[in-house]
Amino acid sequence: MKKAILVLSLALAVVSWAQTVPLPPAEKTGGKPLMEAIASRQSSRDFNITGKLSAQEISNLLWCANGYRNATMRTAPSAVNAQAIDIYVFMSDGIWLYEPKEHALRSVKKGDFRKATGQQPFVSKAALNLVFVYDKSRWPRAGKNDGRWAQADAAYCSENVYLYCASAGLKTVVRGMFDEKALRILLALTPEQIPVLTQSVGR
Amino acid sequence: MKKAILVLSLALAVVSWAQTVPLPPAEKTGGKPLMEAIASRQSSRDFNITGKLSAQEISNLLWCANGYRNATMRTAPSAVNAQAIDIYVFMSDGIWLYEPKEHALRSVKKGDFRKATGQQPFVSKAALNLVFVYDKSRWPRAGKNDGRWAQADAAYCSENVYLYCASAGLKTVVRGMFDEKALRILLALTPEQIPVLTQSVGR
Repeated sequence: MKKAILVLSLALAVVSWAQTVPLPPAEKTGGKPLMEAIASRQSSRDFNITGKLSAQEISNLLWCANGYRNATMRTAPSAVNAQAIDIYVFMSDGIWLYEPKEHALRSVKKGDFRKATGQQPFVSKAALNLVFVYDKSRWPRAGKNDGRWAQADAAYCSENVYLYCASAGLKTVVRGMFDEKALRILLALTPEQIPVLTQSVGR
Repeated sequence: MKKAILVLSLALAVVSWAQTVPLPPAEKTGGKPLMEAIASRQSSRDFNITGKLSAQEISNLLWCANGYRNATMRTAPSAVNAQAIDIYVFMSDGIWLYEPKEHALRSVKKGDFRKATGQQPFVSKAALNLVFVYDKSRWPRAGKNDGRWAQADAAYCSENVYLYCASAGLKTVVRGMFDEKALRILLALTPEQIPVLTQSVGR
């Protein structure tokens, strides 16, 4: 019996390990000079369906969006430092959740669900679609958060994505219109979690 | 009579001219490499009461926040490209409105009203306090805007301010708590205008 439990535990550990893919360390130096990144920031919708991002680009992008810049603080500010934004990443191979502490991607669902993140045809062509989800339960005083800062917190992350794309020569556009109910079911969100913004990234 | 009108018109023109102060052109190149600006972005509240900003720094800051990056497009994205954010600048000498087309400051009120932008003591010490105001009337389909993207639009501008400060060695912190009614009266806002966020900047 003990042996059976050990085998099961090991098997689960392997599955769990396989479902979390570490990202290469983000490049925390370099990039365009800030003023040039801001001058060239723009929204683009004409994604090339064959344009993929490298693991290094995905790593840099997610770190800019909402990574840890030191042991406790993030790259984007958040109201009362609640750090309540989670980023789901929709790619052709599946849906992933960015785990900022581990700087890794955790598998949420296999399959191409990019279309579910928006209504415009280009959404399926973009290599990545980010979904910024605000978790009300992370507010310091539980039950006291009506999610009033959800939008600002998501936009802070989103602007960093815009500037990273401007610096790295990638295309991106943020979107506020999407089928919230469909996303809630797909991501198995709790009532405390609010999908706020989506953002397409590609070439 | 015609002469009197002419004299009056000229006098008004002079007053009007005196109330709009052009900013030096923003420096659209240079600054820290983007990844380093993002790595060093942070909120600071310990402002030195003697720490002023140069005209060049104010110019750069406001251009990053919400200037024109070309003839029609801005440095920060906005929902349906409504470009509905106005930035009021509270300094020791008065309240100013950033005019992005002219890249100038228009005088709104003389006097030090920095304290009115927040509740914390550091607010009066920061050289500048920005107030991000969303104007619902600027939505393409008038009357159809409930201001639902006000917060995101303000936060996009605010993140650019954060990154400029990180790049230029300035201190900044965004704030969501302020006396909205007092600000509405002080700035003579219309019911269509919503003060969304405030942000202190200094040394």
